[in-house]
Amino acid sequence: MTIQPDAATPSAVLDRVSLVLDAFEGPGRLTLAQVVRRTGLPRSSAHRMLERLVHLRWLRRQGRDYELGMRLVELGSLAVHQDRLHRAALPFLHELHRVTGHVVHLAIMDGADVVYLEKIGGRMAAAVPTRVGGRHPAHCTGVGKAILGFSDADLRTVLASGQLARKTRYTISTGDQLRTELSKVRAHGIAYEREESIPGFGCIAAPIGDLGEAVAAVSICGPLSQLKLDAQLAAPLRMAALGIWRNIEGGPVRVQPTLQQARIRLGGAVIQHHPASTSAADLQYA
Amino acid sequence: MTIQPDAATPSAVLDRVSLVLDAFEGPGRLTLAQVVRRTGLPRSSAHRMLERLVHLRWLRRQGRDYELGMRLVELGSLAVHQDRLHRAALPFLHELHRVTGHVVHLAIMDGADVVYLEKIGGRMAAAVPTRVGGRHPAHCTGVGKAILGFSDADLRTVLASGQLARKTRYTISTGDQLRTELSKVRAHGIAYEREESIPGFGCIAAPIGDLGEAVAAVSICGPLSQLKLDAQLAAPLRMAALGIWRNIEGGPVRVQPTLQQARIRLGGAVIQHHPASTSAADLQYA
Repeated sequence: MTIQPDAATPSAVLDRVSLVLDAFEGPGRLTLAQVVRRTGLPRSSAHRMLERLVHLRWLRRQGRDYELGMRLVELGSLAVHQDRLHRAALPFLHELHRVTGHVVHLAIMDGADVVYLEKIGGRMAAAVPTRVGGRHPAHCTGVGKAILGFSDADLRTVLASGQLARKTRYTISTGDQLRTELSKVRAHGIAYEREESIPGFGCIAAPIGDLGEAVAAVSICGPLSQLKLDAQLAAPLRMAALGIWRNIEGGPVRVQPTLQQARIRLGGAVIQHHPASTSAADLQYA
Repeated sequence: MTIQPDAATPSAVLDRVSLVLDAFEGPGRLTLAQVVRRTGLPRSSAHRMLERLVHLRWLRRQGRDYELGMRLVELGSLAVHQDRLHRAALPFLHELHRVTGHVVHLAIMDGADVVYLEKIGGRMAAAVPTRVGGRHPAHCTGVGKAILGFSDADLRTVLASGQLARKTRYTISTGDQLRTELSKVRAHGIAYEREESIPGFGCIAAPIGDLGEAVAAVSICGPLSQLKLDAQLAAPLRMAALGIWRNIEGGPVRVQPTLQQARIRLGGAVIQHHPASTSAADLQYA
C-alpha cells in the first residue's frame, strides 16, 4: 500500500509524525504492528516513517521495539533551558527549596492543563509523583488555581473544556465551586490545594506575573503528613514569585536579600525538619 | 514560491522539520526570516511549517519570535522516564549523591558523543555546567572514557569521526593518547578526567554493563577544588554501576546494602563536607 498523494502534503506528514509520537505516550515501547494499530496508518508508510524517525534519532529501535529517542531528550531539554521564565526562576526555586526544605515546582498553563517546567527537591523529589514535562488538569492543582485566579483567559479555557476532571474526592468538579475557590485565591494572592490532585499530597502556590495577568506559578508541595500549609510557607513563596517576575522583566532582583531574611526568620523551623537547608555545602553554593 | 512535489515526500518533510528544529539549537528564539536564513527553506514553506509546528505545540510563537514548545518538553521527559536504564539507575544515583555529596551523572553514548540522561546534585548541580539532554565529545569526559574502555564499537565510531575535538589544553587529542588512556581505564575499571572537558572541573566514572560491553556510565563530578579523585570515591561508584546493571537485568539489587555500608564507612568524610547526606530528611526518604 502506498501513501495517497493528498496525504503527502507537509501538514499531513507532520500530523502523522505527531500521531506516531503520541502513540508512545503510554507504553513506551511499541512494535510496528502496535504503532499501526494505535495510529491507523498504513503499515508500509508507518514503517517508512518509523525508520526515518530512527534515522533522525527521534526514535530508537531495539530489535522489533521502537522507543522515543535521544534527539527528543535533547530538544526537550533545550526547550526548557532556553525558556526565559525558567532561566529567571531557577535561582529562586533553589533558594525556596533551601528555605523550606520542601519540593518546589515551576509550572505554566497549556490549554486546560498545567505543565511543570521545573521540579526541585533533591532526594525528596522522588516522594512527590510529578515530573518536569508532566501535566495535570489546572483546576485540581495549586499552581493551576494560582494562575486561574489571575488569568481570565485561562479560566475561560478551563471552563470551556467542559466537565472538570475528577482526580480525587476532594477535586473541584463544578464551575461554581471553581469560581468560589478562585475568589479566595485572589483574596490571599495564594492558592492552597489539599488532596485535590493526589491523595495524601498538598500544595501551596503563588502566581507569577503582574496582578492583571499571571503567566506561571511557583509552588511548594509534599505529603500532608510533613507539609504544614500555613502562612509561614506563604511568605517566602510570595517573595520567590515576585523575585522571579522581576527577574524576567530584567529589573534588579531585590527579592533575594528579603528571601535570605525570611530564611533566617524561618531558620528554627527549617533546621528542625531539614538540616540540609543550612548545611556547609549549601552556604558554599549560596 | 511553492514546495517542489519531490520535496513533499514524507522523508523530505521529516528532514525539513528536523532542519527547522535544529535551527533553534543555538539562539533559542528565531523569527521567520532567521529560520529561512538558517535552513535555506523557501519562505512560504518555512512559514507554513512553523505555523503547523506551533499548532502541534512543538514550537510556540511570541509576537514574531518562534521558540521550542511544550510538546517537546513533554516528549523529551517521556523519552527519559520511559528509558529502562534511567529507571533502573535513579535510586542508585540518588544514593551515590547522598553517599558522596557530589554531583552524579548517568550518560550513554550517541555517535561520538555522550548524552547525559540524568544529573543529581541538589544545589550543587548548578555548579557543574552540564544538563540532562546535553552532550559532550566522549573522549574528553569521564563517562565517555569509561564507556569507550569497554566498548570497541563505540571506540571505532569515535576514532572514525576523525580529529578529536579539543575542549581544553588537557583534552586527549590523538588516537594513540586515547588508546593509552583507555588501557588504564580497563586496568582500573574506572575512568578519571581532570579538566579535559571543562577547566577547573574533574570527574570519576565507572562503566555500566558486563565487562564485554559497556552500555552507559555513571560518574561523580565537581570542581577539582572540592573533589578528590581517589579510591574512596571509586568504591561506591563501582558498586552503584554494578547495582544499576543488575537492576536493568531484573536481578535482585544486592548492591544497595553494600552501598549503605560504604556510606557508613565514608560517613566521617561525608559529614565534614556534606551534612545533608545524613540529614533527617534523607533518612526519612532512605
